[in-house]
Amino acid sequence: QDPEERRTSVPGVATGLAVTGAGGDVLFVEAALSEPGTGAQGVTLTGQLGDVMKESAQIALSYVRGHGKELRISTERLADRGVHLHVPAGAVPKDGPSAGVTMTTALVSLLSGRKVRPEVAMTGEVSLTGRVLPIGGVKQKLLAAKAAGITTVLIPQRNEADLDDVPEGVLDGLTVRPVADVREVLELALTPAAKAPEKVLVA
Amino acid sequence: QDPEERRTSVPGVATGLAVTGAGGDVLFVEAALSEPGTGAQGVTLTGQLGDVMKESAQIALSYVRGHGKELRISTERLADRGVHLHVPAGAVPKDGPSAGVTMTTALVSLLSGRKVRPEVAMTGEVSLTGRVLPIGGVKQKLLAAKAAGITTVLIPQRNEADLDDVPEGVLDGLTVRPVADVREVLELALTPAAKAPEKVLVA
Amino acid sequence: QDPEERRTSVPGVATGLAVTGAGGDVLFVEAALSEPGTGAQGVTLTGQLGDVMKESAQIALSYVRGHGKELRISTERLADRGVHLHVPAGAVPKDGPSAGVTMTTALVSLLSGRKVRPEVAMTGEVSLTGRVLPIGGVKQKLLAAKAAGITTVLIPQRNEADLDDVPEGVLDGLTVRPVADVREVLELALTPAAKAPEKVLVA
Amino acid sequence: QDPEERRTSVPGVATGLAVTGAGGDVLFVEAALSEPGTGAQGVTLTGQLGDVMKESAQIALSYVRGHGKELRISTERLADRGVHLHVPAGAVPKDGPSAGVTMTTALVSLLSGRKVRPEVAMTGEVSLTGRVLPIGGVKQKLLAAKAAGITTVLIPQRNEADLDDVPEGVLDGLTVRPVADVREVLELALTPAAKAPEKVLVA
Amino acid sequence: QDPEERRTSVPGVATGLAVTGAGGDVLFVEAALSEPGTGAQGVTLTGQLGDVMKESAQIALSYVRGHGKELRISTERLADRGVHLHVPAGAVPKDGPSAGVTMTTALVSLLSGRKVRPEVAMTGEVSLTGRVLPIGGVKQKLLAAKAAGITTVLIPQRNEADLDDVPEGVLDGLTVRPVADVREVLELALTPAAKAPEKVLVA
Amino acid sequence: QDPEERRTSVPGVATGLAVTGAGGDVLFVEAALSEPGTGAQGVTLTGQLGDVMKESAQIALSYVRGHGKELRISTERLADRGVHLHVPAGAVPKDGPSAGVTMTTALVSLLSGRKVRPEVAMTGEVSLTGRVLPIGGVKQKLLAAKAAGITTVLIPQRNEADLDDVPEGVLDGLTVRPVADVREVLELALTPAAKAPEKVLVA
Ligand SMILES: [Ca+2]
Ligand SMILES: [Ca+2]
Ligand SMILES: [Ca+2]
Ligand SMILES: [Ca+2]
Ligand SMILES: [Ca+2]
Ligand SMILES: [Ca+2]
Ligand SMILES: [Ca+2]
Ligand SMILES: [Ca+2]
Ligand SMILES: [Ca+2]
Ligand SMILES: [Ca+2]
Ligand SMILES: [Ca+2]
Ligand SMILES: [Ca+2]
Repeated sequence: QDPEERRTSVPGVATGLAVTGAGGDVLFVEAALSEPGTGAQGVTLTGQLGDVMKESAQIALSYVRGHGKELRISTERLADRGVHLHVPAGAVPKDGPSAGVTMTTALVSLLSGRKVRPEVAMTGEVSLTGRVLPIGGVKQKLLAAKAAGITTVLIPQRNEADLDDVPEGVLDGLTVRPVADVREVLELALTPAAKAPEKVLVA
Repeated sequence: QDPEERRTSVPGVATGLAVTGAGGDVLFVEAALSEPGTGAQGVTLTGQLGDVMKESAQIALSYVRGHGKELRISTERLADRGVHLHVPAGAVPKDGPSAGVTMTTALVSLLSGRKVRPEVAMTGEVSLTGRVLPIGGVKQKLLAAKAAGITTVLIPQRNEADLDDVPEGVLDGLTVRPVADVREVLELALTPAAKAPEKVLVA
Repeated sequence: QDPEERRTSVPGVATGLAVTGAGGDVLFVEAALSEPGTGAQGVTLTGQLGDVMKESAQIALSYVRGHGKELRISTERLADRGVHLHVPAGAVPKDGPSAGVTMTTALVSLLSGRKVRPEVAMTGEVSLTGRVLPIGGVKQKLLAAKAAGITTVLIPQRNEADLDDVPEGVLDGLTVRPVADVREVLELALTPAAKAPEKVLVA
Repeated sequence: QDPEERRTSVPGVATGLAVTGAGGDVLFVEAALSEPGTGAQGVTLTGQLGDVMKESAQIALSYVRGHGKELRISTERLADRGVHLHVPAGAVPKDGPSAGVTMTTALVSLLSGRKVRPEVAMTGEVSLTGRVLPIGGVKQKLLAAKAAGITTVLIPQRNEADLDDVPEGVLDGLTVRPVADVREVLELALTPAAKAPEKVLVA
Repeated sequence: QDPEERRTSVPGVATGLAVTGAGGDVLFVEAALSEPGTGAQGVTLTGQLGDVMKESAQIALSYVRGHGKELRISTERLADRGVHLHVPAGAVPKDGPSAGVTMTTALVSLLSGRKVRPEVAMTGEVSLTGRVLPIGGVKQKLLAAKAAGITTVLIPQRNEADLDDVPEGVLDGLTVRPVADVREVLELALTPAAKAPEKVLVA
Repeated sequence: QDPEERRTSVPGVATGLAVTGAGGDVLFVEAALSEPGTGAQGVTLTGQLGDVMKESAQIALSYVRGHGKELRISTERLADRGVHLHVPAGAVPKDGPSAGVTMTTALVSLLSGRKVRPEVAMTGEVSLTGRVLPIGGVKQKLLAAKAAGITTVLIPQRNEADLDDVPEGVLDGLTVRPVADVREVLELALTPAAKAPEKVLVA
């Protein structure tokens, strides 16, 4: 796959995992900021999100707004711009709390400028204090991740026991990382913060 | 349990008690403030709260906003920040007035920086003047508290008679404190205000 | 009853009378103001109030906002604070216009600092000009007031004829005061404005 | 009737006529302004008004806001205060456009300080340009007006033919004035503007 | 008809044509501005308008707001005043896009002070760029216009073929003008801009 | 066709393709800005758009607000004016995500002043990062485009395989351009930016 073609090739996009009637699926959470001075403000949520998933987005946003210093991100950029969270495909209704970690990761990626690692997918509810709470469909989600070429999957620590029900073959080539706090998710999923470019000295 | 793993290990989280179709349960009310200057404002309520429970949150917030001086908390922090109350799990609908004391305690904990004692759980409706009004399901709630390792449970004074119906064994090892005013709840549930750290003099 | 335990022991609480499926009942209307500078504004109504009862609250508030000078209350405190009207119990749906006098009294009590007399209960619709309009359930309301230890009940003048249907025994020990204007209600229900404390001269 | 007891004894109250399932009825439209600086703003409509009647109130208000100079009323008082229109009784649902003239009259009475003549009742839809449009139930409304002691009734000019169906006896003692423009309504229904009180010279 | 009695005798009123269950009908669109400083702002739509017709009003308003210079109208008057569009009769539900030209004409008449010619009626949907799009019921609308004494009817150019189905007799005495752009509508329907009154010189 | 008659003869109009119960159809997305200082603000969406299509409009707008610099358009014009997106015909309900590219193109055309090429139509969902996602009804849309005189159709790259099902004859005379990013759409659909007019030197 051409790196430029990857969905996560720009900051603000994180790879999640969902369960549909037809098994597991990969989904992308896209976060975007308007430029300042365009009249945009507040939060826009699109992608035919249900009530629970909209609340997940509010929780992700409040988490970020309350932990800017700790996360070293510029939350003040949220004050004079509009922030938009979208989950394609646009016509497919989606619901549930399990995209919480993905939404938080997309927002922190956007505000920090750190891209999300393309080989990492994740699933987990997030509480307002950053706890990662258990979700359903671990097996289907792992299958979907593997089919999509993902090599690392972050799951809630409290779902670790579900791995016993996953056939050996599925886990081959997959690194599954149980996480208890969204800070661990961010550490594992985001590329390092950009450094100042090295100067090439030509003597 | 590792103290760091406790839900109440940060200010803003209080332990409540609920009755579900399947008996009693422990629930956590999480309160969070955004940092100033992030564009957040007003109140966000999540956790699939029903009408009555949303009103409980409004009552808790008004109580706090009207008693800041008396409670020695900085309610002016509510003016330029968003406040968010969340009750996990995100996908489980919840309703009823009995989390009023828990919501009030979570808010006062958040604004005072005083953590909630991890061994204390509570249940009770709160009126706008701080009265603790009676609730249902005392027996199931005590059972759930005990199962969760709670040792002190605050119940409304007007529910004291309900203790007669609770088997002796349940009350063993549980301290049940009837309360009539939310000020008593705060006194019993919150850890003392932090003092300036003692200086260690090395002579 | 310990005076401190009385619901009306703080300004902002007035005793009303309601009719339920099971007869009459006493209800309390609680009014509260946030402290200035907490970001609260506007009006919050809680207690599972129906459409008609919410309109009663709006009428009570407009009445107060239009008659501040005459009532000698500081309505400008409503400008930079939130005002909240609550009617416990939080989970019980309530409706109807007959709490209009009680809501008006609670608001004037709050803004004037004058407590409501604990022995007085009241019922009556209020129009925007302060007229007290007739209500239903006079007999049941008087019974409920008496059972609650109330000794003075204010009813609309246009309900005076309903007293003929009330058994003699019920009226024994009850002072029923028919009123035509909410100003009469306020005069009868509120304690006098606090005066500067008398100085004790020791010569 | 004691003049002080009349509903129209204060500016802002006008007498309308309605048709109910049980015949005609007199209704009062009450308009009130908050004092400046109480935080009130915008328009509040109460009295369980239906969609059409709420639109009548908006039309009345827009008419007044667009014709302040011509009507010599201080519409700028509407800018920093809340205006409230209420139609008792609070629990009775009401709908229809025929209170348009009554609402306009109540508003102009309020803003001009000119009381509405107690012997005048009125019915008619108002268009945004002040046209008085025809309504239904002329006969029942006249009967209700007469029963209430009204002596002058204003009806839409386009309803004049309906008078043929009204029994002679009903019209005895009633002055019916057909009107085509709401300016005529105001001229007939409002008392003259107050003049400066005459000085009594004592020489 | 007395010119003063005409609905279009003031700027802001335009004559439209509708189809009802009972054939065609003439309708009037009334536009009004509040005086500055009355606290009114935004747009008010009344007349029991359905979703599609409310969108027509928004399109008409956006068209006017985007073409003020070209139309030589003072759109800045919309900034500090409320604008209100009403379509009598108030209790009759109305819907559909065909009043678009009429709403645009009423707004331009209001803002330019140019009255609408009383002998002109119109029908046509308007797009956001001012295109006049086809509508239904041409025959019934022409019949209604003729019955109301209208002599010029503006119809969408794309409805020109519908005139073949209209009996000869109906078109006698009617000038039907097909139009493709709302600018043509305005040119045909509005009276010329007022000039400075001629001075009468008396030598 | 007279160039002046073309729907795309002004900036802000783009040609889309839809599928209806009766086959494919051409639709036009119209974007308009109010002049500054008319009191308009925010976004207005009309054309009886369904939930998914309204979200498409929000995505298009956020994309534009986040990429103004890159697209060399003056997004700050969105701050003090209202923006309106309309899709005629006004009474026809529309839904689905496939007008995303068309809405984005109409907005960029409006803000850049670059007209949309009249011979180009387009279809495709857009994600918040500008990805063009696949849609349905390629065959019907191409038929509709051809019938409308369109010679170039832009489709999502991920729909390229659908071209195999399109009869040869349909593709004759049609240039079909698969696109993966909305930037390609803009490059292919918009006319070049206007340059300063060449000066004609007469020596
Ligand atoms: Ca739901
Ligand atoms: Ca997920
Ligand atoms: Ca409910
Ligand atoms: Ca509880
Ligand atoms: Ca109701
Ligand atoms: Ca009552
Ligand atoms: Ca209705
Ligand atoms: Ca009436
Ligand atoms: Ca509709
Ligand atoms: Ca029409
Ligand atoms: Ca939908
Ligand atoms: Ca399309």
